[in-house]
Amino acid sequence: MTNTHLAPPWQVSRWFNSAPLTLADLRGQVVVAHAFQMLCPGCAMQALPQMQRVRQLFPEQRVAVIGLHTVFEHHQAQGPLALEAFLHEYRYNFPVGVDQHVDGDPLPLTMRAYAMQGTPTLMLIDAKGRLREQHFGVLDDITLGAMLGGLLREMDEAELHGVTD
Amino acid sequence: MTNTHLAPPWQVSRWFNSAPLTLADLRGQVVVAHAFQMLCPGCAMQALPQMQRVRQLFPEQRVAVIGLHTVFEHHQAQGPLALEAFLHEYRYNFPVGVDQHVDGDPLPLTMRAYAMQGTPTLMLIDAKGRLREQHFGVLDDITLGAMLGGLLREMDEAELHGVTD
Amino acid sequence: MTNTHLAPPWQVSRWFNSAPLTLADLRGQVVVAHAFQMLCPGCAMQALPQMQRVRQLFPEQRVAVIGLHTVFEHHQAQGPLALEAFLHEYRYNFPVGVDQHVDGDPLPLTMRAYAMQGTPTLMLIDAKGRLREQHFGVLDDITLGAMLGGLLREMDEAELHGVTD
Amino acid sequence: MTNTHLAPPWQVSRWFNSAPLTLADLRGQVVVAHAFQMLCPGCAMQALPQMQRVRQLFPEQRVAVIGLHTVFEHHQAQGPLALEAFLHEYRYNFPVGVDQHVDGDPLPLTMRAYAMQGTPTLMLIDAKGRLREQHFGVLDDITLGAMLGGLLREMDEAELHGVTD
Repeated sequence: MTNTHLAPPWQVSRWFNSAPLTLADLRGQVVVAHAFQMLCPGCAMQALPQMQRVRQLFPEQRVAVIGLHTVFEHHQAQGPLALEAFLHEYRYNFPVGVDQHVDGDPLPLTMRAYAMQGTPTLMLIDAKGRLREQHFGVLDDITLGAMLGGLLREMDEAELHGVTD
Repeated sequence: MTNTHLAPPWQVSRWFNSAPLTLADLRGQVVVAHAFQMLCPGCAMQALPQMQRVRQLFPEQRVAVIGLHTVFEHHQAQGPLALEAFLHEYRYNFPVGVDQHVDGDPLPLTMRAYAMQGTPTLMLIDAKGRLREQHFGVLDDITLGAMLGGLLREMDEAELHGVTD
Repeated sequence: MTNTHLAPPWQVSRWFNSAPLTLADLRGQVVVAHAFQMLCPGCAMQALPQMQRVRQLFPEQRVAVIGLHTVFEHHQAQGPLALEAFLHEYRYNFPVGVDQHVDGDPLPLTMRAYAMQGTPTLMLIDAKGRLREQHFGVLDDITLGAMLGGLLREMDEAELHGVTD
Repeated sequence: MTNTHLAPPWQVSRWFNSAPLTLADLRGQVVVAHAFQMLCPGCAMQALPQMQRVRQLFPEQRVAVIGLHTVFEHHQAQGPLALEAFLHEYRYNFPVGVDQHVDGDPLPLTMRAYAMQGTPTLMLIDAKGRLREQHFGVLDDITLGAMLGGLLREMDEAELHGVTD
């Protein structure tokens, strides 16, 4: 019944605020991630502040908050040096990966692998590494909270009852 | 581990937007309730708009949203006629019960039974009728959503696996 | 060019937060007033908080902030006792007059004299007592500020240059 | 009584959304300007949206809204190409000048001339070209509106009465 596909691995060329990490490293946590571009208004004004709220409300060992910088336009203006300044100025200290580009393709690899339509795109990954929600845009806080609460409860149930899929 | 106490029954002298109902009638749904007073600023400006958001985001058969008018001050100004005008003007159409008074006690019966400190007070009741959260004040939307999502998941788990307490 | 009509006098049956006052008493100040009903959502959620902001931002000797309780519906629920509780709970301490009713007319006298369409209705009265703006609804803060700043400047000009109309 | 100093000229290396302009070109209009950096959160989240509101509320022939990009940190990340992308993405179409740098000085020339403490910095310039307000940070909308309304009234008074300084 549940989507049993693992979230595709992220192809990241560089990490900020973290040593290199993989989604596999985050098994056992619920992952809240946003694909964003630093100069996309919906990302800067809504999606990233929402991620910061999530970061402040849940313990790190239960909920991982990570960003993926999926630059598909204004490539020169949104390079790693600019991203570093952006993260510094906004005091965002959760891990942010830079989605990797290959020559000649304006869209980065992970953005293609997830068939994203644009930014911001929310991804919710459960404690077993499965992509449970992918949403183009920003969800309201109650809906995001409810999804997150459901995945946390499911994680705790699995531990209590030893349920396996 | 979980609080296994049933939520105390509500003592209601009159219902608005609903035929008389009891918490027992709501088994099988997660209940989001706020005890409020219509002239309490935190109730009118924050708690009730949040309940309205919950009402709009979840299906009625899964989440019940109800209000309890727990008048403990300004009794004359907050009588049933005033409450009816208030609910009409704000277009709140979820069920609202009037917490019952007995002679000589400024605090109504249900407010006493729950030992509430004031208004607004949030109550979350699970599908089995247990009081799982009681909070004086207003929770942020993400936290409320997460609690709600956890209780919904638990309700669904119980149905799937036949878990009983 | 400017409207030279004096603002019609207010017919007030009772004052809260003030000894009885008249518009004539307020000559020499710019007057920001809202006609409101305590159970009108646009009044409680927007107009009155905006008046409170004005109160906090300008000195009392230059800007008078006053409310007019123009009850035209839910008369029983919005009587003086209810209004007193409302003003107390919301900590509004600017003067509020109760617009006077005459037998058999649901609309109070001042509301009729100003031909108001409903609540909230903003009134701006200049330092010479002229009604310079009447607006059904709530203006955004910048626009209200600009009108107010214009009337204040005009008041100061008149003092400096002795301009008379 | 009034500050009679003309606002120092801006030293601009490049204009966006406009042919090159000078403050002298804007005589006869009230000028609302913000010195900003595109990666400064208070600028992007508060000051620039406020300027956009001003732009939408007042006619262009009476109120000029202009931005000054005063980069004093993260120079590489906030170059003209990045600024162009930023203005495009946020749909800001009022004129924005790039404050000019000279070799070896991280602070640009206009920022130095105005002795600004940081970004955002609001500047209000009257119709005669005098700097009437300089404020580090963002003013609330009512206060900004009142200053603007005062300067507009003063401009109109000068035209009506032929007052000269």
